[in-house]
Amino acid sequence: MLGSTYGTLTTDSRRARVIACGEQPGPAVHGRAGSDEVDVSGRPLHADVVDLDRFFRPESVAVVGASDAEGRPNTGITRQLMAWAERVGARLYPVHPTRASVFGLPCSASVADLPEQVDLAVLLIADPLPVIEQLADTKVKFAVAFASGFAETGEEGAAAQARLTAAVERSGLRLLGPNTNLNAFEEFRDDLDGPAIALITQSGHQGRPVFTLQELGIRLSHWAPTGNEADLETADFISYFAQRPEVGAIACYVEGLKDGRSFLLAADRAAREGVPVVAVKVGRTETGARTAASHTGKLTGADTVVDAAMRQFGVIRVDGLDELQDTAALLARAKPPKADGVVVYSISGGTGAHFSDLATAAGLTLPTLSDAKQSELHQWIPEYLNVANPVDNGGHPVGDWRGPKIIDAILDDPSVGVLICPITGPFPPMSDKLARDLVDAAERTDKLICVVWGSPVGTEAAYRETLLGSSRVATFRTFGNCVGAVRAYLAHHRFTAAYRSPFEDAPRGPSPSFRKAQNLMRPGHQLSEHAAKQLLRAYGIRVPREQLVTSAAAAVRAASLVGYPVVMKASAPQLAHKSELGLVKVGLTSASQVRDAYRELTDIARYENIDLDGVLVCQMVERGVEMVVGVTHDELFGPTVTVGLGGVLVEVLRDTAVLVPPFGEDQARAVLDQLRGRALLDGVRGAPPADIDALVEVVLRVQRMALELGADLAELDINPLMVLPRGQGAVALDALAVCR
Amino acid sequence: MLGSTYGTLTTDSRRARVIACGEQPGPAVHGRAGSDEVDVSGRPLHADVVDLDRFFRPESVAVVGASDAEGRPNTGITRQLMAWAERVGARLYPVHPTRASVFGLPCSASVADLPEQVDLAVLLIADPLPVIEQLADTKVKFAVAFASGFAETGEEGAAAQARLTAAVERSGLRLLGPNTNLNAFEEFRDDLDGPAIALITQSGHQGRPVFTLQELGIRLSHWAPTGNEADLETADFISYFAQRPEVGAIACYVEGLKDGRSFLLAADRAAREGVPVVAVKVGRTETGARTAASHTGKLTGADTVVDAAMRQFGVIRVDGLDELQDTAALLARAKPPKADGVVVYSISGGTGAHFSDLATAAGLTLPTLSDAKQSELHQWIPEYLNVANPVDNGGHPVGDWRGPKIIDAILDDPSVGVLICPITGPFPPMSDKLARDLVDAAERTDKLICVVWGSPVGTEAAYRETLLGSSRVATFRTFGNCVGAVRAYLAHHRFTAAYRSPFEDAPRGPSPSFRKAQNLMRPGHQLSEHAAKQLLRAYGIRVPREQLVTSAAAAVRAASLVGYPVVMKASAPQLAHKSELGLVKVGLTSASQVRDAYRELTDIARYENIDLDGVLVCQMVERGVEMVVGVTHDELFGPTVTVGLGGVLVEVLRDTAVLVPPFGEDQARAVLDQLRGRALLDGVRGAPPADIDALVEVVLRVQRMALELGADLAELDINPLMVLPRGQGAVALDALAVCR
Repeated sequence: MLGSTYGTLTTDSRRARVIACGEQPGPAVHGRAGSDEVDVSGRPLHADVVDLDRFFRPESVAVVGASDAEGRPNTGITRQLMAWAERVGARLYPVHPTRASVFGLPCSASVADLPEQVDLAVLLIADPLPVIEQLADTKVKFAVAFASGFAETGEEGAAAQARLTAAVERSGLRLLGPNTNLNAFEEFRDDLDGPAIALITQSGHQGRPVFTLQELGIRLSHWAPTGNEADLETADFISYFAQRPEVGAIACYVEGLKDGRSFLLAADRAAREGVPVVAVKVGRTETGARTAASHTGKLTGADTVVDAAMRQFGVIRVDGLDELQDTAALLARAKPPKADGVVVYSISGGTGAHFSDLATAAGLTLPTLSDAKQSELHQWIPEYLNVANPVDNGGHPVGDWRGPKIIDAILDDPSVGVLICPITGPFPPMSDKLARDLVDAAERTDKLICVVWGSPVGTEAAYRETLLGSSRVATFRTFGNCVGAVRAYLAHHRFTAAYRSPFEDAPRGPSPSFRKAQNLMRPGHQLSEHAAKQLLRAYGIRVPREQLVTSAAAAVRAASLVGYPVVMKASAPQLAHKSELGLVKVGLTSASQVRDAYRELTDIARYENIDLDGVLVCQMVERGVEMVVGVTHDELFGPTVTVGLGGVLVEVLRDTAVLVPPFGEDQARAVLDQLRGRALLDGVRGAPPADIDALVEVVLRVQRMALELGADLAELDINPLMVLPRGQGAVALDALAVCR
Repeated sequence: MLGSTYGTLTTDSRRARVIACGEQPGPAVHGRAGSDEVDVSGRPLHADVVDLDRFFRPESVAVVGASDAEGRPNTGITRQLMAWAERVGARLYPVHPTRASVFGLPCSASVADLPEQVDLAVLLIADPLPVIEQLADTKVKFAVAFASGFAETGEEGAAAQARLTAAVERSGLRLLGPNTNLNAFEEFRDDLDGPAIALITQSGHQGRPVFTLQELGIRLSHWAPTGNEADLETADFISYFAQRPEVGAIACYVEGLKDGRSFLLAADRAAREGVPVVAVKVGRTETGARTAASHTGKLTGADTVVDAAMRQFGVIRVDGLDELQDTAALLARAKPPKADGVVVYSISGGTGAHFSDLATAAGLTLPTLSDAKQSELHQWIPEYLNVANPVDNGGHPVGDWRGPKIIDAILDDPSVGVLICPITGPFPPMSDKLARDLVDAAERTDKLICVVWGSPVGTEAAYRETLLGSSRVATFRTFGNCVGAVRAYLAHHRFTAAYRSPFEDAPRGPSPSFRKAQNLMRPGHQLSEHAAKQLLRAYGIRVPREQLVTSAAAAVRAASLVGYPVVMKASAPQLAHKSELGLVKVGLTSASQVRDAYRELTDIARYENIDLDGVLVCQMVERGVEMVVGVTHDELFGPTVTVGLGGVLVEVLRDTAVLVPPFGEDQARAVLDQLRGRALLDGVRGAPPADIDALVEVVLRVQRMALELGADLAELDINPLMVLPRGQGAVALDALAVCR
């Protein structure tokens, strides 16, 4: 049961809140061990789960603004809430300042006059703020505010929403909304079996198709329409649903996130519980992001960062609501796979070829069945048909006793985890029997059976009754959605099997490097290359041997210490585009070249009016793969680490990938696979493989730096990081650092 | 009417056939002017359209192997053919060696005994060959062979199919099949209006969903199940359908193509007629290609080449059968767009944001509506809602008189070509009225109105009756398919408006370069770099100033003629990987460096046992963008031209695009947009824009070379082609040429 008080810890850099669930009254009490832990960046490492049982299944409900007057919108809402209260067994109390009763129920004049302490107050009034303040004294656990006109309308509304949030924080209750609706109180079918989908949406209309899945026999357990998320947010519902035994998958429609860290912690919890989270997230484009922001007044975040966060924490991102439905339904209901292999089984060689083509293109593995298995299948399937996988039965065998034998024989193969049967067109003599056989076979097996019913009509009995009547067969309408959902299914189980929460190992306190680094920071300034490299060095990142000199003679001495050939570069704070200005000289092999270069660099600097702090004489490092590693800040997720290919690849193709802290070594290594030019690291055109371990180590050290220095390090860019051949390390040849 | 004889011209390099439609008997008569024209590669520039009227609407039909014996498969087929013959008004004659009658119809013992000359003979017999031979004398126009066991079964079957093809060519009839089915003779609904979809499939089952579209009110006019294409092929049906007035779009399911050139000529014809061709083409992956080949025994072709051919000739390629249905239905029925702008109109801000995000990501243009238009809309839509585009009506206005006004006002905007209204979930009070209003508005406008009915159920009256009852509103079930189809619709009309057939300008005879080039060819050999460059020069492609020398002294003389700095390279036939072997020396600036380099190169060659034909002393060209241009041969399309980015981009990312001859300058220019690194040509990091005109000119000259030299030039690879800054041309720095 949810406690009556809540402790809030607001960290300096983020808005994340840590909620305690202790029973005792009093401020800032953290009921669970570890709930108040923060990482070195001051952000929480743990978010307690809000117990929402009494929100979804209250014993008593107050409806503030209830009405039974003809034609008033609140009248319809009141009627729906009464029906819902009856279904869930809650006592309902109308609240209205002037009415004595509503629909025959006695009315309270205000929430202070309620006959008992209610679990939930539904606020149908235009301005929920005063009632929230009143509710603080009544010990109500939850409130829902339908009113719109808050952050979604602009600055003024955002200020009103901030006042609402503050009142909620003072009150001790938890609020859903504002700008939400009745979706949580819809009528859910209770005659459906098996694991359910729990739904979270930031738009009622957008959740409707997933909710409607019940009409196709797929169970829904909850619907959280989060609205503007002045208090309760998507993350709270993910965490709660992940722990509900009836929930098989969580489906989300997300326009913006309230906070990056709370989302990561919720996704981490779902990953640890093994509960899949499937999400549509608007914001692939500027247009989408802008429109979404104006809809619920939330931040959409940089899409590449959101994408990276979801990938790291196993959230399955899809584009369409149809994919959301199909993927969530499959993941909710299918048992973990016994094997990764997919067999395509069809009554048409064409269908098998087409489906296999799409499946393989999407990265599914279609194992070739063994000779023994093929011989077995050829007992029932004519010899001239291909049964290697795809298995083409030519049609006729499905019509008789051979049909079930073939299906069982395929499922029995140890390489097979999934059997997919695409039926593109209904041909009742065959397709009805085939559908029946597949449904029956699903009762005999633990393996996943998927069917694609490709008819554009979808009113056929084989589809509506036979296939949708089975909770064990996963039925799709298109090849594309089936392939996408099966890929997500296999990936989800691989992901959770290997998942290790990066929060476990996230650094709590500063490293010894931190003190050194702090001394190098120059608030409000871009550091000189030399200083930026010292910063890297403080975190154990290798830089070339180099010396900063202020005379030609010193340059020559430095060169012989550094070792020829050398590179010489002008060094000054705020200096960028050195190469374009001619302020870099490479491949200097003699004292006289060094002297000439020194003169030339200082001449150019004088001409360009640049105040040098000296000239860098650096060891020349040539043989390696040029990468870039950097730090930027995301409005939602804080500091992020970017890694990418250097040179023309980063210039032209922006071949980079993002990592959202906290992440571990495995994730830093895996992200390299997202780079289109990744093959360069493995060695191309006879080049040796690069020292990927050293690259990963640099990425991890940069993460540490980003977390410890936080917002003070506004920007870091190592470009290039030269990754040497395997075993030889990686060297930061140039670096740019901007302090806030 | 189709003539009774056919002339066949088999070109030396390809299997393309040119069919004449003359009325006169006799061999190789070409009824139309130009039908026997070939290009310089010997391939046809024109393919006459086979008149298939009497195939689809025969006056008389013979059914060879007809049966009415209980339990025989041919009995069911005979029954279906009788029903079809009655529908199309054809006289049907059963043919059977021993029966007197079939289903009461008098039977002929053989095709020789038929009471009249029939238009079509349907062959239900296991071996159609002898009957085809008999049919030659009966002047039957068309035959269909259902039998399987031909090219789809392997070598032996392929040989049987070749015999069948030969018999057909001798006979003067045109054959559909073998390995085909009844699909052409299905029952088509004749109560549906508007332009129809004509369907071509290489698998009956795979065509079923498109055919079933009739149940959603979409008209189908024909179905050609082409089977193994021993004679009539997909291309013949595309050409025929493109000229039928009732056909609005051609939908194809293609596993393999019989011939590349005939496909291009058919696609060219459809493009000139403005008839869209939408195709699923299996073969994105090896698995798909292999499986498809085993299904109908056809070549799938290299997928990148097929893709390029389709793009050049405006064939719209889609992945799923659902996309095929939705795209073909939209393109068949929608009038040409008045503008490219798309407005998204919805009853939910969330839906608008989500749809706009996907639409923008797919490249659709969502113009911001003018202030005046927004003010107009705000007469009916509350001020706080976004009406800039997407237009969010907030829900309520759709319920009353404002609904139609809003729709008309949006459609009235000159920037708007398409109005899309995504309705994700049925909410009858609003969605039913909205559907009705959209259908009504569609009757008042020439602009395209699309609706997405997102309910996963699809049995609602608003969908089934209101929306599907309109042939003017395009109704989809998913955001993704709507976005894809609208993109294809706008692209198709842009394409046909700008289309100019490349066959018009395709070279018919050899250029003056050809003779020079022939003298340079060394059959069976790889040319030396020097000889390959002379070949390029013969076609007017610039190469660096260079001389082939055989002594150090000559090298020094050559260097001073070529001009310092120079590059020196070992030159020998069959020599590749020169750089890796140390056989290239760059940046030589003095006579002594040239002498040393000569010695070093010849020493290495001796050590490596390479028989040099000399050392090349070349002008050094540094400043430009490295590209590659090459020629390879495709099993379906013959010589193709590849163009791509050079250096690391081609090594690691294979950033290349393919052009299938014939293509014109516009297509050579447009293909550059497919390169991911295209920005390099426009100038990055302060580099000047490259001479794209010169690059395009090289690509066109390489096409000419590829066509004229044909298979004799097995391979050509210009790598790198240095494209200099704009106005300065492009220089082939190295070239590899292999002669067959």
